[in-house]
This record gives sequence, C-alpha cells and structure tokens, in this order.
Amino acid sequence: MEVVILAAGKGTRMRSDLPKVLQPIAGRAMLGHVIATARGLEARRICVVYGHGGELVRERFGAEDIVWARQEPQLGTGHAVQQALPHLTDGDLALILYGDVPLIADTTLRRLSDAAAAGKLALLTVMLDDPTGYGRILRDASGKILRIAEHKDATEAEREVREVNTGILVAPVARLRDWLGRIGNDNVQGEYYLTDIIGLAVADGVEVTAVQPTAVWETLGVNDKRQLAELERIHQRNVAGRLMDEGVTLIDPARLDVRGELICGRDVEIDVNCVFEGRVQLGDRVRIGPNCVLRDAIVGAGTRISAFSQVEDTVMGVECVIGPYARTRPGTRLGDDVHLGNFVEVKNSHIDNHSKANHLAYVGDADIGQRVNVGAGTITCNYDGANKYRTVIEDDVFIGSDSQLVAPVRVGRGATLAAGTTLTKDAPEAQLTVSRAKQISIPGWKRPVKKTT
Amino acid sequence: MEVVILAAGKGTRMRSDLPKVLQPIAGRAMLGHVIATARGLEARRICVVYGHGGELVRERFGAEDIVWARQEPQLGTGHAVQQALPHLTDGDLALILYGDVPLIADTTLRRLSDAAAAGKLALLTVMLDDPTGYGRILRDASGKILRIAEHKDATEAEREVREVNTGILVAPVARLRDWLGRIGNDNVQGEYYLTDIIGLAVADGVEVTAVQPTAVWETLGVNDKRQLAELERIHQRNVAGRLMDEGVTLIDPARLDVRGELICGRDVEIDVNCVFEGRVQLGDRVRIGPNCVLRDAIVGAGTRISAFSQVEDTVMGVECVIGPYARTRPGTRLGDDVHLGNFVEVKNSHIDNHSKANHLAYVGDADIGQRVNVGAGTITCNYDGANKYRTVIEDDVFIGSDSQLVAPVRVGRGATLAAGTTLTKDAPEAQLTVSRAKQISIPGWKRPVKKTT
Amino acid sequence: MEVVILAAGKGTRMRSDLPKVLQPIAGRAMLGHVIATARGLEARRICVVYGHGGELVRERFGAEDIVWARQEPQLGTGHAVQQALPHLTDGDLALILYGDVPLIADTTLRRLSDAAAAGKLALLTVMLDDPTGYGRILRDASGKILRIAEHKDATEAEREVREVNTGILVAPVARLRDWLGRIGNDNVQGEYYLTDIIGLAVADGVEVTAVQPTAVWETLGVNDKRQLAELERIHQRNVAGRLMDEGVTLIDPARLDVRGELICGRDVEIDVNCVFEGRVQLGDRVRIGPNCVLRDAIVGAGTRISAFSQVEDTVMGVECVIGPYARTRPGTRLGDDVHLGNFVEVKNSHIDNHSKANHLAYVGDADIGQRVNVGAGTITCNYDGANKYRTVIEDDVFIGSDSQLVAPVRVGRGATLAAGTTLTKDAPEAQLTVSRAKQISIPGWKRPVKKTT
Repeated sequence: MEVVILAAGKGTRMRSDLPKVLQPIAGRAMLGHVIATARGLEARRICVVYGHGGELVRERFGAEDIVWARQEPQLGTGHAVQQALPHLTDGDLALILYGDVPLIADTTLRRLSDAAAAGKLALLTVMLDDPTGYGRILRDASGKILRIAEHKDATEAEREVREVNTGILVAPVARLRDWLGRIGNDNVQGEYYLTDIIGLAVADGVEVTAVQPTAVWETLGVNDKRQLAELERIHQRNVAGRLMDEGVTLIDPARLDVRGELICGRDVEIDVNCVFEGRVQLGDRVRIGPNCVLRDAIVGAGTRISAFSQVEDTVMGVECVIGPYARTRPGTRLGDDVHLGNFVEVKNSHIDNHSKANHLAYVGDADIGQRVNVGAGTITCNYDGANKYRTVIEDDVFIGSDSQLVAPVRVGRGATLAAGTTLTKDAPEAQLTVSRAKQISIPGWKRPVKKTT
Repeated sequence: MEVVILAAGKGTRMRSDLPKVLQPIAGRAMLGHVIATARGLEARRICVVYGHGGELVRERFGAEDIVWARQEPQLGTGHAVQQALPHLTDGDLALILYGDVPLIADTTLRRLSDAAAAGKLALLTVMLDDPTGYGRILRDASGKILRIAEHKDATEAEREVREVNTGILVAPVARLRDWLGRIGNDNVQGEYYLTDIIGLAVADGVEVTAVQPTAVWETLGVNDKRQLAELERIHQRNVAGRLMDEGVTLIDPARLDVRGELICGRDVEIDVNCVFEGRVQLGDRVRIGPNCVLRDAIVGAGTRISAFSQVEDTVMGVECVIGPYARTRPGTRLGDDVHLGNFVEVKNSHIDNHSKANHLAYVGDADIGQRVNVGAGTITCNYDGANKYRTVIEDDVFIGSDSQLVAPVRVGRGATLAAGTTLTKDAPEAQLTVSRAKQISIPGWKRPVKKTT
Repeated sequence: MEVVILAAGKGTRMRSDLPKVLQPIAGRAMLGHVIATARGLEARRICVVYGHGGELVRERFGAEDIVWARQEPQLGTGHAVQQALPHLTDGDLALILYGDVPLIADTTLRRLSDAAAAGKLALLTVMLDDPTGYGRILRDASGKILRIAEHKDATEAEREVREVNTGILVAPVARLRDWLGRIGNDNVQGEYYLTDIIGLAVADGVEVTAVQPTAVWETLGVNDKRQLAELERIHQRNVAGRLMDEGVTLIDPARLDVRGELICGRDVEIDVNCVFEGRVQLGDRVRIGPNCVLRDAIVGAGTRISAFSQVEDTVMGVECVIGPYARTRPGTRLGDDVHLGNFVEVKNSHIDNHSKANHLAYVGDADIGQRVNVGAGTITCNYDGANKYRTVIEDDVFIGSDSQLVAPVRVGRGATLAAGTTLTKDAPEAQLTVSRAKQISIPGWKRPVKKTT
C-alpha cells in the first residue's frame, strides 16, 4: 500500500502564519500525527502533497523518508492527488489521507484497506446526527453505493441521509490514475474534486464499499482554532482513557496533558493538572502531585514528585522525594533516595544516593556524592561570566547554609562547610572549612527613621 | 433611549454580605457588566434602582455618571421601575435591565430597541426546553402576544408553551409612566409586577412584539452561588471562543480565565490553566506556559513566559525569556531579550536589554543596564526598615552569586562583584569588587553528634 | 440495624496491587467512605467481609470497632453475606452495602431501612436509561415485585424494563439466615448470588419493596480506573455544590478538589484549581488564589493566600497575607497580619503578629516575635547535620537580607542584623550586629575570557 497525504491547504481560518498542517495537537504538528499513523501501516511509500507554506512543511519533516509532491496552484483535492500520481506504482493500492484530519486511527485504516483488497474502492464514511454540509452517501435498494450527493446539490430526501463521505479512501493506483484523468472542474469553485471518482468507479462497474471508523472523532478535520482545541481535548481524553485502562490512577482525566509518550509502571498516581512532554517514563508506585510539568524524564519506582515541580531531561532513581517547587533542568541525574525540596534548581548535575538539597538552592554543573547535605541557600557559582566550571562534592559532605562554591572547586569527603562560606579553594576532607568575618555589635546604634518627602 | 437597571435585590440565597449585584463575574461586579453593556448602547441616561446594600453599590459605581434611584421598601419590579420614573423623559424609550442578569448582549438589546422603535412595547422572550416556573408568552392564533401567564396561574395547555418572559423590555417612557400608575399589588406577595404592564399595553391597543436573544444564557439570572459559577463559566467559554476566532491557540479553552481584557497578536499560544486579570496585551508569537497568572501586563512579541510565572503591572519587551516560577511585581519594566529565571522576584525595577537574572534573586527598586548578569541568590537590599532606596547597576556588570547590594548603591559600568559580596559603597567601573573573609580549614574538627533526648 | 459491607473482591480490572476497596476517592479508601456512611446510620454493628488483600484492608481500618469476617474462597455475594451471619443477631435488620459502591448516601439508606421496618425486604433499585447488563426488577400488574431477571436470562420484553437491582438491600437477619441457607450455586459461575434471596422472599410471602436513591450515581460501582475517576469527579462536583450552597464563591466548581473536610466562613472565595486535603477551616472573607494546596490548616478571617501557595499543618491568624509561592510546613503557627511572600518556606515555627518574611527565606524551628522584618534571603540554620536547634527572634527585630542565623541563637528585642550577617552568637537588644569583611576593589582586574575548547 502507498499513502498519499494531502497537506497543501492554507488554512486561512486558523489566522496563523504557520501552515495549517503544522498546527500542533498534543505538541506535535497535525501532519506529524498523520505521518506517524501512515508509518504504523507499514506503507511502502508515503507521499505528502504540499503547497502553502511548503518549504516550512518540508523542512519540518525533511529528515524523514517521505516523497514530496508540490501542488501549485491548488485546484482541489482531485488535482492534489494527481500531483502524487507520478510517485505511485500501478498495482499498488493508494490510501488517501489528510494532513488536517489528525486523529484517524490505524485500526480503522487497516479495516479500510482490507475492504479495498479485492479490487474494490473502499471509502470511509461516517454516520452523523447532523450531516448538514457534508456529501451524502447514496445507495440503491440493495445497499450498493451509487454516488455521493454534495449537500448543496442534494434533494430533500437525499439530505435525510446521515451517512456522509469523509474523503478518506483506498483505491488501486492504476484505477485512480485513470479516474483522475477523467474528472472535470465544471463547478462553482472550478476545482477538481477527488469525490468525483466515486461516480466514475460505479460507472466502470467497480464496487464501492464503505467502512466506518470506530469513532466519529477520527474523521474530524481542523479548519480553525476552535476545532484545533476540540481535537486536542479529544486526543487528551483518549490518552487519559488508555492510561486508566493500564491501571494509572488519574485524579481528573480532564486535567491531564500528554504531549508525547507517557509510560507508566504499576500503581502510578497522577494528580490534577499535570503536563507531560516528550518521553516520560514513570516507575511503579510513582506519585506525581498537582500542577507538575515533566518533560523527557525517567523516574524511578516509588519516587514522589510534589506539587508545582518541573522536571526536564532528567533521570532519577528510586524512592526520591522531589518538590514541591523543585526544578530539574537538562542533564540532571539523581541517584536513589535523593531529596530535592522547595525552590531548588538543579542543572547538568549528578547527585548520588541519599543526598539532599531541601531548600532554596542552585546546583549547576556539579557532581555530588552520597549522603551529602546541601544546606538552604547554597549556590554553585558555575559561571564566571565567560566559562562554566564544575563543582565536585564528595560523599558525606555537609554544606552549611548560604554557602557559595566558586567553581572549579572540590569539597573533600566528609568535609563540612560552615554557614555562609564562600569557597574559592578546595575544602580538605573531613575538616571544617569556613570564611567568616567576626561578629560585632554596635551599642547605641540608631535605626534609620522614615524620611519625610 | 434611557436605561433603567434594577439592582435593589438582596440576594439572600447568595449567603453573602456583599449585595447581590456586586457579586463578581470574571472579576467584575455583575452590575458593572450590565452598566458597561448599557454604555455600549450609548444610552442617554442610565438609571440604577438600588436598595439593599445600596451605599456600597453607589460607592462602587459612584464615580460614573449614573442616576441613582432608591427603592425603599422593595415592593416588586413594577415598583422598582416607578422609582426611576422621575429621572426619565417622556418621548424617550426606556430599556429595563437587571443587575443580576449580567451577560445580556448588546446586539440582542439593539434588536430589541429597534423592535420598539415604532411605538411598540418590545419584550425579550426566550424558548426554554423546560419552562417550569417562568411566565409563558400567550399569543392569539395570528401570533400576536396577548398576555403573560405566570406559571402558577397557567392552565395545563398554557404550560406547554415554551416561550417565556425574560423581564427585559423596551417601552415608551410616557406609556410606562401611565401603565405603572395603573398596576396593582393584588397578589400573594403583595408586590407590583412589571410584567403586568403587558396586559395593560394589549388593552390599550399597543402592539407587544417579542425579540429573542442570540443565546439563552444571555438571559440567565443569578440567585445563588451555583448560578454565579455557571455564568462565570459561560462567560469564560465565550471569551475563549472569541480568542480562538481571532487565531489564539488555547490548549484547553475550558481552563482559561480572563478577568478583564486580553488582547493578543498573531500566533499567540496559551497553555492550560492560565489566569489573566486587568488589561493584558500579548504581542505576536508570545507563548504562555501552563499555570501562569498575568495581571495588567504588556508583553512584547516573541516573548515566552514559562510555567508557574506571575506577572503583575509589568511591561516587557520582545523576545524575553521569563520563568518558570518568575514573579514580576508592579513597576517592572523589562527591555528586549531579558531573561528572568526560577524563583526570581522583580519589583519596581527597570532591566534593560539582554540582561539576565536567572536564579533565586530579589531585584527591587533597581535600575539595571544592558547585558548585566545578576547571579543566583543576588539580593537588592532596598529597605532599611524605614525607607526604600534604589540600586543602580550599569551596563555590562557581572554580579557574582549571593551578593547583597545595600541601597542606595551604584555598580559602575563593566564592574564585577565577586560571589558573596556585601556591597555597601559604590563599586567602581570595570574593577572587581569584593568583600570576603579568608577561607580557612580546621583540621581535627569533630562533627556534632546526634544528641539523645 | 446491623450493616454488612462486602469488601472481598479482588478488582483485577483496577490493575493495581492495592485491594480494590482501598482504592481512594477524594483521598480516602472507598471502603472508608462506606464505613463512614454506615457509622452515620448509627448501626449497632458493622461487619466487613474481606478477602483479597485482606490483611492490608484490616490493617487500614483495624483501629476501628469493626467486626471482620473472612471470605475464603470467594463464592459470590450470597456466600459473602453468609460469612457475616455468625456475627449478626436475629431480630435485627441487616443492611447490605458494598465496599466498591462508595457514594451511597445516608439519606437514601435511611429511607431504605424505614421501608424494611415492617418486616419487608427493602431493595434499592434504580432507573437506568440504558439498563443493559443489569438485573431487571420484574413486577406484577399491581406493581408488586416478583423477581429479578438477570440480563442474560431476560426476555426481550423483560429487557425493556429500566428498573434494575443495585444489590443494596435491608432484610431481617433471621430471614436472611434462612434464605442464604437455601440459595444454590447452580449457574455458570458456580457462585452463590445474594440476588436469589428475592425469589425466596416472594415465595415465602415476604413483601419486597423497592426504594430509589436520590441520584443514580449513589449506586455506581467501581471496577476499573475509569470508573474510579468518574466517581471521583462526581464526588468532587457534589462537594463543590454543597460549598456553593453554603455561600462559598467557587470560580470554577469543576476545578476544585476537596479530600477531606473543608469548612468555610462567610464570603470565602476560592479561585481555580485548588486542592484541599485533611481538615481545612477557612474564616470569613478568606480568599484563596489559583493553584493553591492546603492540607490540615486553620486560616483566620480576612487572610488572603495567593497563587501557588502550599500550606500544611498550619494555623494562621486573621488578615494574613500569604504568597504567592509561599510554603508553610507542619508546625507553622502564624499570628495576625503576618506576611509571607514568594519563595518563603516556614517550618515548625511561630511567627507573631505583624511580622513579615516577604522574599526567598527559610524559617525553620524559629520563634519570631511581633513586628519583625525578616529580610530577603534570610536562613535559619537549624540543623548542624545531627541535631536541630531553635532560633529566637524577639519583637521589633530587623533581620538584614541574606543573613544566616546559626541556631541555637537569639536576637534581642529591637536588634538589627546588617545584611549578609552570619549570626553565631546572640545579638544584643537594640544594637546593630554585623559580621562583614571590608569591601575592596581591584583596579586593572581582567575578566575571564571565553576559553576555546
């Protein structure tokens, strides 16, 4: 099978500079969803017909093994498929998809292509409660499809029909080539409509068979931002449903956003209003508190991430205690039983087992050993304005509050830094290191008084 | 046209000390919505009939050019309108609105007043699926309105009628004056009902014409907190819809709260669960991450505000990178390409182009030049317990981590502060300024041991 | 009355290691909800029939005066009730409930037990729009219940019946004992069905009377995580409704999570997306901003908690100003008019009236007097790596920014700490205390340059 994806539309109603098919659902361009579905079908070839904003579209998917066909000018869906024909092989079946119908399911498409296998033209149709505006599927008394009546041309009786055309179809390439050569543009828009091949197929004695999707939303197209939001929500509801089927506890399935892949172990619980981006893997018994954002993360079993935490490009071990208000940035690697508390930022650092940074700290470009206590207000001064340097803190170190570690610097095993230390040279193992001015008090000192202005 | 707004109700079911019409929808008193709509109609006069909690109501809207009529005691809607009559001019039309029906649309009211123009009494009616409890609109065979049947007085047949009275109407002032003088209070409540003028109009041979609102929710009244929340959501859904129509990408339209005015450029994207208050203006390509709160802000094109940020009374330039967990407070003015990172608070400060404060900092009452790097943990000590002073940091300064700048103080162009500096005097240009105690280590130091209690 | 709660099911479809009846709704095990409802009925005895994961179930509720009956193996609902029989007293009525039907309301159960009082068998039935799969209630022409037809055994006509069995019933213990001794397991599953007693009751001439719940959701059972989430939302919607009925303003009732008890004074307003856990008490006029999390807290009248704050095991006085991004941890006690600002953590500390910690601070194990100003970046160093000590700050103290107070330490009344002070000894009253190195500047200093790698 070969797949043709029509992706040339401008999408004026999106009111955006971004080509329509690049508008995202769940953080991924709609066209990306359709291409991924096509790949899942193991198509022999995927041909994308592009047009408006085309270079941007090609650029985005350029690295992928896709055949590109340019449609310029844009003279309708039939004309669009025609642009793909030079890339298609007679003898194959062609599946026609749409870059702005992003949620079509592979299971539905497999049924559709199975229906087409016996030389038939297989059309995806859908039953709508309100079919206004759509092309109705007209059948004879025996149920055989005769033709499609466009809404504006349909009689009152025909308009009663609730089965409508989705535009998605599978046809033999050779037939398609023939039919597309024969359709005209004698209509108000002056366009070549793919739909017209149905009539030609019937006239040629090719049986037209209809297949229905599992759900109507698979066939919904996106023409404006309201529809984009609607499909975003349908997609997220589906994702949430699948996670619950796998056993994940979602406190509110309507307040979950997964933009990528979320893989969960057993007895994972996700509280309200969390966002997952990229590839996130949560081990058994992981609990994510309300309002967390995780992106590209691996979280070990039993780890708990509390409210308002943001985790990015991070790997953390088992039984960690993260947040609330903890932020890990790219390159964070945490061992087991690591604690990161409120208002703590970690970046490009390794923190080994049983170490803690529980309050108001910046840990950047650091290698921290086991059982280290990083006091409140500690800052690794990793940047001198021009270069970044690493801080090394060995096992069993105690960093007193509000210390600054001016990298490159090393704190030896078992060392203690006194509170408020500015560490500019290495701290020796096991010793107390301190930089501190003498505490003095000034009797008779007068406080400032409020100035009158 | 003149507008009379009935706003005297107590609203016992709100269970609140606040008068009902001051209860907020989208952060604004319901009465404020109705007054704003009335103003949009360019009414010659707006007369608010007040009563319960009246002084509070007048106080809130006192600065505005509104005529106030006190209703005391409160003897029904007809009696309420009577209190307004002394302020109305014969020859004008009077539009009757309600302070607890906040979402009535100006387009609907324009149609209503157009319908009244030819000397008719124009009544806003609405078709309800379940009209239980409402006054039914009874018409003759030709469709002419005859009278209103209150639910409790209606026959079974009359109760089948789904068209009901909303109470909103437009009538000639002189007629209104006449009719209101003739209605009685011979009913269970002993009240004077505005509705009774319909019968008088028909009896007087004045044609009563009905107009329907664009949507039923325009006519919904608020009597309790459930209804208040319901209208809040309807209003927010409408706001979200309008934003999407303008091209704004909303990841979840059901999780957006706009309490004021949100003006968006092209290709703006707003993630889930954001709150906008006051007047917020977002430039082209601005992206707002999840869970942000913005109040009275102007955000330049291409700026990105990440999760958990709170922005208040702030102007920021183009291509800024704000958050996550950044907080700007009133008086914050940011140039272009300014970066504010996590756990950073800025108040009443100007930060010029390309400057950064990326981690754990308090910047208050400061003027910061271009290309300044404010290190992690930096604090401007702007308050001596009595007075506030400004900190000036000139272009190209590097502030080392955990520095304190004791204002008033100035850091000269190109200066560097070493980490941990307490700056009490001006730092000269281009030099390194430092206040640091010598680092020493104490061999043989014994760590504290856990005391047994 | 005696209550039997069936709680032995494994709940395979939950895909969890936790026994089904321990799965939480609103943070409390489903069985816990049912037990609480049973207690509310003042039952003479509550007998829980347990099985799968039984020890865990008993352990969770072990402290409570519950009679436990083990069902092993598990041979159906009739068999389950049989296990409870030895604990029940002839002459009492027995109410049969289910550990996985958590939202059953006590008002409904009271009506049910009232119906059973006259020696009848009282069955809770419910009208479903789609009764597929449920046992239909079959009645004779006079409306008397004859029997229950299981879906699979029902005729087409019987399947039209929309009244279905919920399984919840009240019966005289002696009768129950008799009937359960007579039911068989001659069915596909080889199980003993409680439902079969209905037929026996009718045969014995015992009138079977039906009672309907106030709402269908009371009778919904939980078999998978989708249903768990669905009931979570129903429960939360109910809680939100009750709060609004009491006069609480909820900006979005669909974005409120109450997991425990939330008690509100007059004119409380709760913004979107807040979570309440444990027992939370909000005084009059308290306002909670968006995205806050409160657990076991008492909040005084007029206090305002702003966005992104997390409050835990905290008592705070009136007119406090908390947040945004403030976090209070267990043992926090705040007086009146206390201000806690952004990125401030307080733990196990008392802060007296009119004191403030407005920016980036860690206050742990401290006793702070009245009118104290805790400067930005202040840290109480309460932990020496082995022991925790208290910091005492007396009335009217001014703590300069970025100070560290190394506990145990005391700051005397009216004292001032200069910015950046490391306080290791007590600071005397009224004096200025400082530990500060001299500020020097280094002319001719060259900044680091970017290294090429």
